[in-house]
Amino acid sequence: MLQMKEAKRGKSTEAIKKVSSDEDVSIDHIISRVAKGRIVIPKNVTRENTTPLGIGNGLRTKINANVGTSPDYQAIEEEVEKAEIAVEYGSDTVMDLSIGGDVDKIRRKILKSVNVPVGTVPIYQAAISPANRGGVVEMSSDDIFNAIRKHAEDGVDFLTVHCGVTLDTVNSLRKRGRLMDFVSRGGSFLAAWMLHNEEENPLYSEYDYLLDIAKEFDLTLSLGDGMRPGCLADASDEAQFRELFTLGSLVERARNKNVQTMVEGPGHLPLDHIESNVKLQKIASNGAPFYVLGPIVTDIAPGYDHIAGAIGGALAASVGADYLCYVTPSEHLCLPNLRDVKEGVIASRIAAHAADVAKGIDSEMDRAMSEARKDFDWEKQFQMAIDPDRAKKLRSERPSESDPETCSMCSDYCALKTVKNYLKNVD
Amino acid sequence: MLQMKEAKRGKSTEAIKKVSSDEDVSIDHIISRVAKGRIVIPKNVTRENTTPLGIGNGLRTKINANVGTSPDYQAIEEEVEKAEIAVEYGSDTVMDLSIGGDVDKIRRKILKSVNVPVGTVPIYQAAISPANRGGVVEMSSDDIFNAIRKHAEDGVDFLTVHCGVTLDTVNSLRKRGRLMDFVSRGGSFLAAWMLHNEEENPLYSEYDYLLDIAKEFDLTLSLGDGMRPGCLADASDEAQFRELFTLGSLVERARNKNVQTMVEGPGHLPLDHIESNVKLQKIASNGAPFYVLGPIVTDIAPGYDHIAGAIGGALAASVGADYLCYVTPSEHLCLPNLRDVKEGVIASRIAAHAADVAKGIDSEMDRAMSEARKDFDWEKQFQMAIDPDRAKKLRSERPSESDPETCSMCSDYCALKTVKNYLKNVD
Repeated sequence: MLQMKEAKRGKSTEAIKKVSSDEDVSIDHIISRVAKGRIVIPKNVTRENTTPLGIGNGLRTKINANVGTSPDYQAIEEEVEKAEIAVEYGSDTVMDLSIGGDVDKIRRKILKSVNVPVGTVPIYQAAISPANRGGVVEMSSDDIFNAIRKHAEDGVDFLTVHCGVTLDTVNSLRKRGRLMDFVSRGGSFLAAWMLHNEEENPLYSEYDYLLDIAKEFDLTLSLGDGMRPGCLADASDEAQFRELFTLGSLVERARNKNVQTMVEGPGHLPLDHIESNVKLQKIASNGAPFYVLGPIVTDIAPGYDHIAGAIGGALAASVGADYLCYVTPSEHLCLPNLRDVKEGVIASRIAAHAADVAKGIDSEMDRAMSEARKDFDWEKQFQMAIDPDRAKKLRSERPSESDPETCSMCSDYCALKTVKNYLKNVD
Repeated sequence: MLQMKEAKRGKSTEAIKKVSSDEDVSIDHIISRVAKGRIVIPKNVTRENTTPLGIGNGLRTKINANVGTSPDYQAIEEEVEKAEIAVEYGSDTVMDLSIGGDVDKIRRKILKSVNVPVGTVPIYQAAISPANRGGVVEMSSDDIFNAIRKHAEDGVDFLTVHCGVTLDTVNSLRKRGRLMDFVSRGGSFLAAWMLHNEEENPLYSEYDYLLDIAKEFDLTLSLGDGMRPGCLADASDEAQFRELFTLGSLVERARNKNVQTMVEGPGHLPLDHIESNVKLQKIASNGAPFYVLGPIVTDIAPGYDHIAGAIGGALAASVGADYLCYVTPSEHLCLPNLRDVKEGVIASRIAAHAADVAKGIDSEMDRAMSEARKDFDWEKQFQMAIDPDRAKKLRSERPSESDPETCSMCSDYCALKTVKNYLKNVD
């Protein structure tokens, strides 16, 4: 059973019903958007514990947290804990990007540990296979598709596949030049492979085969932006948009085979590029869900890229991006630890929620929080807070001794207190 | 000597020359904007150690950090240290909002300790005066103007004065209602005073007297938004805009007397209200510099309001706001500590810088950072970073042992490394 196929027939599915009820959006809206490919429900038919989640038009903005080992840090339990913490703090999905240690074991453990949709980037496994010790250029096309099939069989719900990194586009990039060339790990592997082997990207040349595998499992394809700009100086250049329009045509081919797709986007973008980037993605892909990686709006904030990403993500989502990949404080510096994962998820949630308020989707929590503030109801404020523990901790570090009902910023000179003491009694 | 008066005569001043050189903007641009009141240079003529700073049209976005004691926390040295840390991490100005302990001593110490423009809110001192133990309603008009004069004589460069909180507007607010009434400390003091004493706001009724004091010292008036919305539910309501248009008329009266003015703005605003708020402020005030407090874009992020404020501030500045008041992680919870001040300043700098990049003012640092990244030049990356120590610390916590040139996120699978190893050698 394929979600898109059912939707095209006008049929509801269990997953569609769940999304409709979670989002308080009509089943008809979901059916029509899934049929058109404007909403995806990433759910591998073989995975039992995926809670269905909708991503796309008219729904809450979703966020993703990347976890996974690196060549230097391969502690499986820590990566599983990262996935769990990410979900605990509100990440809607998790991607396992492991490239170190027993990556099969990690992926399977994560798939068991969390109930949210899980994504992977199978080309990483192909590239790091012991058979390819000579480097990523030694991968075979079979290595790539075998990794994809293995991940699908394990129950992965969505895959990033860099199908738009074509020989044509890579050569054009090399002719035009840009400051940082490739910053996408998968994109750089494929470009190296293609130039070394003088062959087209198998994910592009054998795209129909990829779609066949996807159909078997109702895999959602997240069409990766292998040419994404890695710095503001490269933002919105020819390479980026050549790839975007290629992805647009691949979206259409997938829809014709009832395969659900998303399109991935930057990366690094100046604030004033964001709206046009989002709108062009929607045009080029005929409304496919847009999954942005940040975007971060300045290059000079290492250590605080979760904030730079929250700024870009909030603006992107408010003008139409559907799904935000978190950025952690350790971006550009090191593999994130548990604290970084939590900080990244929360910054991304703030961005997504701010955008949803702007889109009129979700402002009840804000009103409830404001009512609790007005009433000096601290317990309720903590309940409404995006991170109750942190709010409680800060407040308890510096309480107001002189007027415990208020906070220590103003104590008895609190504006709300002044209103309560004077304005309410005047009439 | 008044900056605006000189500028109206087409004359340059030392301060104008300094701003022109710091901002790489022509002296003629500065002169014409200062003359029109679209740029302010807050510098009390009696204060010797203010480094001239321009705020307004065509200049870098500026940021402010609030420091100051509260009734519960009155450690003078800690507040001075906060001011110093704020400046160290890039705050362009400091405001002393002390309402506890020996506020004269704190203000004077801060004025000596930092060389940036310093602002205050004199009504706080009037309200907390021992003579007014019965509450803020006991203040006299003299108390308010005496505090203003005292701050001016001490050398304060700019003052927040809530001149737009009029009887008319307060009564209209009470008739219409809003969720949180007043969240501005100064606004709530004045409203309480006005209703209790059945008198007009002295800062409004005696505005000409205020302008006369301002002229004596070339004080810049920051026209406070006493009616600002304190939650998303109250954003952009009648009370807020009634006050804004009052402030617009007061800007004009100040300009006629060669007194420099800024206009303060929200506060709490949904993301989709920001652009219209900024544009309306510019229209209502005929282009006066806009000093926004955040704005924070959701109410549910206590503990992380620096992030919610950075999102709003970046968008506001990118569409025309000139000056961002920082928000710290302890906003709505307690008086900030040193760590909070640093976090608040950095979040605000990221927002201001992201906006400046979008406005085409300042992207050289981003390019330099990206070049250093591409070259794996970590020392240069740290130098370019908004907080070199934090970037260094994160990187050193989790170094890449297997490939120390890269970072532990990808190590030898680093995209930039793949480019370096393969793509550069293909031709």
